[in-house]
Amino acid sequence: MRSPDELRELVDVELTRLPLADELGELEEALRYSLLGGGKRIRPVLCLATGEALGQDAGAVLPAACALELVHTFSLVHDDLPALDDDDERRGRPSAHVSFGEGVALLAGDALLAEALRLALGYESIEIARDLVEAALGMIGGQYRDITGDDADLENLHRLKTGRLFVAAVRLGLDVAEVASDARAPWIAFGDDVGLLFQVVDDVIDDDGYAERLGHDGASRLADEVAGRARARLDAIDVDTSVLGELVDAIAVRTG
Amino acid sequence: MRSPDELRELVDVELTRLPLADELGELEEALRYSLLGGGKRIRPVLCLATGEALGQDAGAVLPAACALELVHTFSLVHDDLPALDDDDERRGRPSAHVSFGEGVALLAGDALLAEALRLALGYESIEIARDLVEAALGMIGGQYRDITGDDADLENLHRLKTGRLFVAAVRLGLDVAEVASDARAPWIAFGDDVGLLFQVVDDVIDDDGYAERLGHDGASRLADEVAGRARARLDAIDVDTSVLGELVDAIAVRTG
Repeated sequence: MRSPDELRELVDVELTRLPLADELGELEEALRYSLLGGGKRIRPVLCLATGEALGQDAGAVLPAACALELVHTFSLVHDDLPALDDDDERRGRPSAHVSFGEGVALLAGDALLAEALRLALGYESIEIARDLVEAALGMIGGQYRDITGDDADLENLHRLKTGRLFVAAVRLGLDVAEVASDARAPWIAFGDDVGLLFQVVDDVIDDDGYAERLGHDGASRLADEVAGRARARLDAIDVDTSVLGELVDAIAVRTG
Repeated sequence: MRSPDELRELVDVELTRLPLADELGELEEALRYSLLGGGKRIRPVLCLATGEALGQDAGAVLPAACALELVHTFSLVHDDLPALDDDDERRGRPSAHVSFGEGVALLAGDALLAEALRLALGYESIEIARDLVEAALGMIGGQYRDITGDDADLENLHRLKTGRLFVAAVRLGLDVAEVASDARAPWIAFGDDVGLLFQVVDDVIDDDGYAERLGHDGASRLADEVAGRARARLDAIDVDTSVLGELVDAIAVRTG
């Protein structure tokens, strides 16, 4: 089985050569700019590691993994727009709308979401696209709660905005491996924990969200607790989940 | 078989009661505002009439037809944003971003695209979602050419921006009716003509595009020619296409 770093390398290579719809014309440049601007690739790596733990070839899981990264990138491109977070920088470079203009960035985000679905629809099984679109809808609902503040429940907000795509990363791995629905619960619970872990660590780094509510130390303790719970979920699963364990460790100690 | 008006009524009723993802929360209001703000429903009616001509129950075609209208509405909501056309009015009412703010309108557009795909993914056959997402990508590519003006070829621009969704309307009807691929060519050519007809008539009404290039009379003659070609395509198809013929007539004489 490949290490998280090796899996990330696979994702980066695949994203670089990903064919995009001809009809996009030069809009493709804005998609590639956003897609290839670095990024930790945590969601696709989680998806690939889940698939490999279940005995799948990485190649079979790669389109689903990349589709997740496209949905994630779509959300970043739209989030950065002046209408939402108005962020001029993303990963140390100008945001898509700064480089290409707001109109092009808007369309590039739209195209990334559509391309993600197209990629997921390349599978014979319809389940992969179904699970991806459900996750995208949950994520959009989370973004809505984030900007309107109409939900005081921080956990629910993050479970939608961040968590849904993490759970989908695991779920798409299960889909490709055709894991029966009655054997999925521990995997899904694991994906849920990884999503929460990622968010809490993110808040500790940025000193907001959970860190604001629980204090830096309180949020760090929560992260440790969730990481421990995620590892326990893996221990209870009867396949070699060591790479997924490494991934949990890497997310837990992340500092930026 | 139902008349175009009866089919439109079916679409309006279905759109009104369309269940949307729970996770969207109150964002649902912005989706419904845009979706239920009137509109001619030409694409879904074209889809339903195609399905009925092929012996399908309207009920079986309705989800695909509504999915088309959701994609169309997504494109309107995003097009109206200040980053693109900056239109404050749509169908005699304030645009979505005027009513709900730019951030909410952006997310509502995203959610409409995702909901369209979710609806298409409700079918057992994966083809419907595949064809819908290809059409959405073509449409986005057309919008990109429209705002960047990087394509002097007006026909290609419209074939993407407007035409793709019209062809998809016919194609989704064929998908639901499981028409074999070698029997599809005349139908697709018909869809292509209807899309062009719609666009040329639109330009005659707005006095731009084809009317600007060919003059009012020249564009009107082109519309007549394309309408004649579309009717000839129907005549060559060996099922009762009378309702589709009525639809061509209605589009050809449209004045607003």
